[in-house]
Amino acid sequence: MSRIAICAPATPITREAADRVTALATAEFPGLELDFHEQCFAVEGHFAGPDSLRLSALLDCANDPGVDAVWFARGGYGSNRIAERAITGMSPAARDKAYLGFSDCGFVLAGLYKAGIGRPAHGPMAGGIMGPDGTGSVRRALGWFAGATDGLEPSLDDRPTVAFNLITLAALTGTPLMPDLTGHVVIVEEVAEHLYAIDRLFFHLASQLRGIAGMRLGMITAVPENDRPFGTEAEDIARHWCTSAGIPYLGRAQVGHDPANRIVPFGLAANAPRA
Amino acid sequence: MSRIAICAPATPITREAADRVTALATAEFPGLELDFHEQCFAVEGHFAGPDSLRLSALLDCANDPGVDAVWFARGGYGSNRIAERAITGMSPAARDKAYLGFSDCGFVLAGLYKAGIGRPAHGPMAGGIMGPDGTGSVRRALGWFAGATDGLEPSLDDRPTVAFNLITLAALTGTPLMPDLTGHVVIVEEVAEHLYAIDRLFFHLASQLRGIAGMRLGMITAVPENDRPFGTEAEDIARHWCTSAGIPYLGRAQVGHDPANRIVPFGLAANAPRA
Repeated sequence: MSRIAICAPATPITREAADRVTALATAEFPGLELDFHEQCFAVEGHFAGPDSLRLSALLDCANDPGVDAVWFARGGYGSNRIAERAITGMSPAARDKAYLGFSDCGFVLAGLYKAGIGRPAHGPMAGGIMGPDGTGSVRRALGWFAGATDGLEPSLDDRPTVAFNLITLAALTGTPLMPDLTGHVVIVEEVAEHLYAIDRLFFHLASQLRGIAGMRLGMITAVPENDRPFGTEAEDIARHWCTSAGIPYLGRAQVGHDPANRIVPFGLAANAPRA
Repeated sequence: MSRIAICAPATPITREAADRVTALATAEFPGLELDFHEQCFAVEGHFAGPDSLRLSALLDCANDPGVDAVWFARGGYGSNRIAERAITGMSPAARDKAYLGFSDCGFVLAGLYKAGIGRPAHGPMAGGIMGPDGTGSVRRALGWFAGATDGLEPSLDDRPTVAFNLITLAALTGTPLMPDLTGHVVIVEEVAEHLYAIDRLFFHLASQLRGIAGMRLGMITAVPENDRPFGTEAEDIARHWCTSAGIPYLGRAQVGHDPANRIVPFGLAANAPRA
C-alpha cells in the first residue's frame, strides 16, 4: 500500500473535489491510500489559508515518514511565497518521496529539484478532477503513483528533463529556488496568456536558459483574444527566441493545462520508482 | 527651436493622434518642432511594422544630429525585440539626446541607461493624447521638452532614480539590457494586471533588486476583477516583498498608466537640460 498525502501550497480545492478523487482511487487503485490534509480546504483571500498554514501543511506531508508521495491539490498562485521556507524545513523523511504537481506548484518542484530532495514531477493535480475530462487526468496521476509508466510524456529520452509553466519559470529565474538547468530539456506550457505576453516571457528566458539541451513547447491553451492579432503563432514565437538564443528547439510536448497533461519526472527519474 | 523626433518601437499610433499632438505643440509650445516618423503609423500584426522597420526608425531618430530628443509614440509590446540591436547601432549623435517614454518602451530606456547613452526619462508618450485627459499628459511631456520642471515626479531627491513598468522590469532582469540599479530609488507601476500577478512580479524582483536605495510604488491601475478577492492591496504587496528582501519601501509615486503620470529622468538627470 502506498500512502499519498495531498496539500495545497497555492489555492484551495473543495471537499467535493477531494471526495471524487478518493472515490476514483478506491474504485480503481486499491494499492493507493489518499490522505487529504485539512488545509486543502482552507481559504484566506486568494490562498488556501495564510502562508504559515500552507507552509506547515506542506511540511506535515513532506516530513511524515509514513507518506510515500506528496501530491499538490491545485495551482493558481501562491506556492512561491512558502517554497523557500518549505525547502529549508524539510527533514530527511522528505527525501524519500515523489512530489507531483504543476502550474504555480512549479515553484516548489523547482526548489525541491535544486535542493536534491525527493523526486519532483510535473503532472496533473487532484483539483483537476473538477474540470472537463478531469477523471482522465487524475487517473493518469494515480496510475503513475501506482507504478504505471504509460502516463509519461512520450518525448522523454536519455537527457534530463524538466517542465514548467512559462510564467512560473520566468518568475523563478534569479531567485534562490531556480535550479541549474544546464544540459536539460526544458518543456514550457502556458494558459490564459496573450501571445504578446508569451513572446515577452520567451524574450526573458532566452537570456537565462543558455546552455540547456533544448526546449520543447507544451500546450498553449485558452489564449485570450487581443484587440488585434499578434501575427504569428505560439510555436513561431518559441522557434524565434530559441534561434536567437542558440537553443535547439525540439518540437512539441503533451504537457499543459489540458486533461491530456502528461507526466514529466524531473531529471532522469522517468524510470525511477515513485511511490 | 528644439526638434523632437517621434518613432514607435512597440505598437503604432494613428495619424489623428499625431495631428492632435502637433496641433497642441503648435498652439502652446512655439519653441518645439515635432517630427513624426512615418513608421509610427506602420502596422504588422501586433507591432508598428516588422522588427527591421521599428529598429531602423529608432536609429533614424537617435542618430540624426539635427534632433534634440526622441519621443516614443506608444507602448503596448515589442520594443524588447529591437532594443539590444538599437543600442548597438547608435552613433555618437545619439548621446546628446533626451529619450522619453514608458511602459513597454522601458526596455529601450533600460538599454540606453545601461549603455550611458543620452538622457532616458520615464514619462507620457504621444499616443496618450487619445486617452481620457490625454491633453494634460501630452502637455506635461511637451513642457518638459521645452524646459519646464513642474512635470517631474515630486518625490525625486538627491538619489539616482529610475521608473519602470513592473512586468517590463521583471522581463529585463538577467538580460543584456538590464542596468545596474545599485543605490537607486526604483519606482514601479502596473496596469491591467491581477493582484496575484503583481505579487508574483514583486516576488521575482525582490531577489533581483537587493542593493537598491529603495522602492516606490507608482500607480496600479485597471486591476481586473478576479474570481475571488486577493485579500490585500497593492501597497501591502509592495511592503511585504520589500520587507522580505530588506529593501526600504519609500511610499507612493505619481507615475503610471494615468494622465497624471509624472516624469522621471533616469539617474540624477532631473535638473539636466533635456532637449
